[in-house]
Amino acid sequence: MSLLVVGSVAFDGIQTPFGSTERTIGGAATYFSLCASLLAPVRLVAVVGDDFSAKDRAVFSGRKIDLAGLEQAKGKSFFWSGRYSDDLRTRETLVTELNVFAEFQPKLPEAYRDSQFVFLGNIDPTLQRHVLSQMRRRPALVALDTMNYWIARTPEELAKTLRLIDALLINDEEACQIAGEHNLLRAAKRIFSMGPKAVVIKRGEYGAMLFHRDAILAVPAYPLEKVHDPTGAGDSFAGGFMGYLAGRRKIDHSSLRCAMIYGSVMGSFAVEQLGVERLRKLTRREVEVRARALVRMTSIRL
Amino acid sequence: MSLLVVGSVAFDGIQTPFGSTERTIGGAATYFSLCASLLAPVRLVAVVGDDFSAKDRAVFSGRKIDLAGLEQAKGKSFFWSGRYSDDLRTRETLVTELNVFAEFQPKLPEAYRDSQFVFLGNIDPTLQRHVLSQMRRRPALVALDTMNYWIARTPEELAKTLRLIDALLINDEEACQIAGEHNLLRAAKRIFSMGPKAVVIKRGEYGAMLFHRDAILAVPAYPLEKVHDPTGAGDSFAGGFMGYLAGRRKIDHSSLRCAMIYGSVMGSFAVEQLGVERLRKLTRREVEVRARALVRMTSIRL
Repeated sequence: MSLLVVGSVAFDGIQTPFGSTERTIGGAATYFSLCASLLAPVRLVAVVGDDFSAKDRAVFSGRKIDLAGLEQAKGKSFFWSGRYSDDLRTRETLVTELNVFAEFQPKLPEAYRDSQFVFLGNIDPTLQRHVLSQMRRRPALVALDTMNYWIARTPEELAKTLRLIDALLINDEEACQIAGEHNLLRAAKRIFSMGPKAVVIKRGEYGAMLFHRDAILAVPAYPLEKVHDPTGAGDSFAGGFMGYLAGRRKIDHSSLRCAMIYGSVMGSFAVEQLGVERLRKLTRREVEVRARALVRMTSIRL
Repeated sequence: MSLLVVGSVAFDGIQTPFGSTERTIGGAATYFSLCASLLAPVRLVAVVGDDFSAKDRAVFSGRKIDLAGLEQAKGKSFFWSGRYSDDLRTRETLVTELNVFAEFQPKLPEAYRDSQFVFLGNIDPTLQRHVLSQMRRRPALVALDTMNYWIARTPEELAKTLRLIDALLINDEEACQIAGEHNLLRAAKRIFSMGPKAVVIKRGEYGAMLFHRDAILAVPAYPLEKVHDPTGAGDSFAGGFMGYLAGRRKIDHSSLRCAMIYGSVMGSFAVEQLGVERLRKLTRREVEVRARALVRMTSIRL
């Protein structure tokens, strides 16, 4: 079933100990779409500037990614640049230029308004609700990402949006910040009381956890000998997670568990090369092979 | 089968946001023994001072823990005290008084020298080898813990000891320090080349990983709503891991995988209350229930 994603398409400057680029295509919705589209057709809503060329658009070609919702506005595209530490565990943001993204008013093409699976990327929570208001009917699953900026500055708006969604996908620090809790289990329970029925907590190299009803699932990160660029790993996780569910057309507990594996697998491919390089070449077959390997890495019979 | 542990029995002063104690029984070998003895009979080798009373010894009573190797020396027992941060993620050591532990020369009672399972706790690597030299025959499994102090100060002695052991159980920072590698997978491979055939990397609240031959297993930490005191969690993990193997009398790959679950489970009980309080009351049945729950938390069928 079709999967709608709303978020950023941007240019990134990335400096890592293993390589650098002054300008490459990035943005949460880009990583998300490249991963999700291996598992289900994706409908993209984002804005780019007039510096985003036909050649840049080609990053999405060859995949089932509908670009009817990719608006081109006057001005420059969102630009972010950052530098990673030697162990890749921390990064410093060097530049954030919102440019056309500052005025982004997501508008859903008519054909997108029946999407059954919706991923609201990290944008202003008011805009996230604005997206939902454009849907013809309640989607089967709405998932959301957010960040410390919105948690701290617009907590009331975020709370209103959380009441409308099914699943929250965030990192561990953000989960604790939203809930006002150091403890992850208590944070997840507190978030349940705010609306979401499922909470996915991304923990980078430590994997991810799913909290759903009374059940908890922990999925490790796929261990890699070479991690070159952590940029977009979390968005790739979200793409794998949502893409799997949309492809399977089921949202029961067992599908959510499997979706965690596909999320983790996509995150692991994302970090293997600079920017979206690895994801552009990624095949469904490679994904399936690694998903099976990751399941073996957690499987125990007592 | 009997499991020999050599390490510290100490008094600890512990300050956490949830409670404090000026003096309680601690030490790596204490945590290890309390956990392991629920799964297999334990033989303890350690030294305490003349301040270690019969009442203090009672911490080991009611369990299959042989105290023939618990030497009582003139002087005071090893004393450590520390204070944890509000989120329990960091701790500051306030006092370390080695006392009788500074002169510890582990001596195995005659009856211990046929032990098939041996855990060499974190002591001078030269003394760890001295323990092995007292064994009547090569044990079925020798596992070892160490710390940054020995890795930095006595790397040659440590290297000699590593060549003699089967399994290394350490935390992620120490693994990277021993191997001179940021990457955990490469660190594990490097450690393989130094002697151990299995590497267990403890990651605190993120669980643990087993590297054995070509296989990798990731086990999460059991999620708890209340974590009161992280002291001894790693030693309890080691106790669960080694206790399970000694109890099962098997060291094949599938046993090592199960042992990881028991390690993680013991670590989770250890942190529920201050010092060894929770472990003293712990029952085999509680361990089995939680082990099964933890397996469910990682089990996925694609």
